[in-house]
Amino acid sequence: MELVAAIDLGGTSIKAALLDSALNPVHSTRVPTRRVGEVVDVDQLGELIETLTEDATGHDGRLVGVGVVTPGIVDSDLGVVRFGANLGWRDLPLRERLIERTKLPMRIGHDVRAGGLAEFTVGAAVGVRNAIFMPVGTGIAAALMVDGHELHATGYAGEIGHAVVDPNGPLCGCGQRGCLEAIGSAGAIARIYAERCGEPVSGALEVATRMQAGDEVAARVWDEAIRALATALTTAVVLLAPEVIVIGGGLAESGDVLFGPLRRELESRLTFHRRPQVVAAALGDGASRTGAGLLAWRAVREASS
Amino acid sequence: MELVAAIDLGGTSIKAALLDSALNPVHSTRVPTRRVGEVVDVDQLGELIETLTEDATGHDGRLVGVGVVTPGIVDSDLGVVRFGANLGWRDLPLRERLIERTKLPMRIGHDVRAGGLAEFTVGAAVGVRNAIFMPVGTGIAAALMVDGHELHATGYAGEIGHAVVDPNGPLCGCGQRGCLEAIGSAGAIARIYAERCGEPVSGALEVATRMQAGDEVAARVWDEAIRALATALTTAVVLLAPEVIVIGGGLAESGDVLFGPLRRELESRLTFHRRPQVVAAALGDGASRTGAGLLAWRAVREASS
Repeated sequence: MELVAAIDLGGTSIKAALLDSALNPVHSTRVPTRRVGEVVDVDQLGELIETLTEDATGHDGRLVGVGVVTPGIVDSDLGVVRFGANLGWRDLPLRERLIERTKLPMRIGHDVRAGGLAEFTVGAAVGVRNAIFMPVGTGIAAALMVDGHELHATGYAGEIGHAVVDPNGPLCGCGQRGCLEAIGSAGAIARIYAERCGEPVSGALEVATRMQAGDEVAARVWDEAIRALATALTTAVVLLAPEVIVIGGGLAESGDVLFGPLRRELESRLTFHRRPQVVAAALGDGASRTGAGLLAWRAVREASS
Repeated sequence: MELVAAIDLGGTSIKAALLDSALNPVHSTRVPTRRVGEVVDVDQLGELIETLTEDATGHDGRLVGVGVVTPGIVDSDLGVVRFGANLGWRDLPLRERLIERTKLPMRIGHDVRAGGLAEFTVGAAVGVRNAIFMPVGTGIAAALMVDGHELHATGYAGEIGHAVVDPNGPLCGCGQRGCLEAIGSAGAIARIYAERCGEPVSGALEVATRMQAGDEVAARVWDEAIRALATALTTAVVLLAPEVIVIGGGLAESGDVLFGPLRRELESRLTFHRRPQVVAAALGDGASRTGAGLLAWRAVREASS
């Protein structure tokens, strides 16, 4: 049985799996990300792929390709990570480095765009020619499907988290004021609520729970987040005219308390534009890994053609 | 000599030309748009194409294809004008109607997207894989080149004029408040200035002239427009990562008084993002017509292949 390795590299952990050609995991693993000083150690990925090669043999299979997805600015055509703040990488030719060591067909991708690829291919927006996948977690980014093409722009596309939705809003980690990410992300919701109340919360879902219990500060913070999300999405809709917007990440787990008001807010802002459906991600946490698997199978097909 | 007809249909006039294969005009004409009641008369286009067929003969040429561009929501793949507020059209199968009458290879396009096609093909952003063309006149729309593909989204893409840049801003014709078009268009600049001063002006260029002469109201209106343009473009940049932004339309004729502050404002907002060049359109008023010519030659090539 031919298998591919799907590897989702994060700043704190690496999630990896062996997937069959139907993208079913036959084996999965999670290890803490290893660093040399501040810099994530590329050799760990090489070692992981070697271990997965043995694991494949243990499952009566054969590892035939690899997909690795990372955060940051990733030029997937060249297989170069341009900039990964969480990884300490700059202009790292990751694909070349890993091929050198493993000699396997290999594709490098961006974690969010790979998640989008998975949602657009086997998830919540299959066969849709114009769609947006926007995971909302600690940060916010988007994968854009435009006229049936996954937008790449040499790795720079989709940074919707840094659309300015309120020029007088809070400072963002990027240095700008009032970015969507600084108001509408799960991280921002928890942080802003904690600041206003003077007591920490476990996360955005707790803010939602408190709002439902009648907490007015929570309601205000949540409402500001919804409006920030709607503002950025409205601009994305007038520019790109998606038929479907897929919301993922931790915030999507809050369900109707997010989707109800977000749909209403978006509806109230769109006038002559085409109305997109707003739906929850189908693949949850595993979207990026599934996307890495899709990239790995692409690499296999390309190598054999 | 083979010639194509390039027709730019507007709400008040039709600009048409016969272009050779190098897109040089060998003949051009302009006629007022004819209406039957509120609705623009399709037959006028048919008659115009017949006249242009004779004109081509008169120039020792032969009309071999037609490109027609219109405002509104245009599905250029199907050749259908979905919605043209200025034209009184809804779901009009324009391509089919004109082929029936003229039997010529024919393409229908959107005026702004066709202008973008011209700027991206023979104008200010040739060979750039990610670019935005944004004419700023009475209204504002954009043509988007994404990864070397002209974004279409069945005609709905590029409506950047209706990105909300100030939720408390003036009412827009579309029914929403604070759209870019209601603050940053040449039309809005003239209108807002006139409202604040109580005296009419000939247009946005006069507001610029007054600002340069020390008029503080003019300076404020102009500054608000620049900031509105920068706000919408920043979101477009973080989403689409264009390498070049081409500004056209009447406002681009104001030159440095527009481009200087707009470049500075955009530069001040972008943090880790790729910085686009902001340049003036090369084809001016004729971009849409040149784009119609490009569409016509495409129709010819497709018909012969």
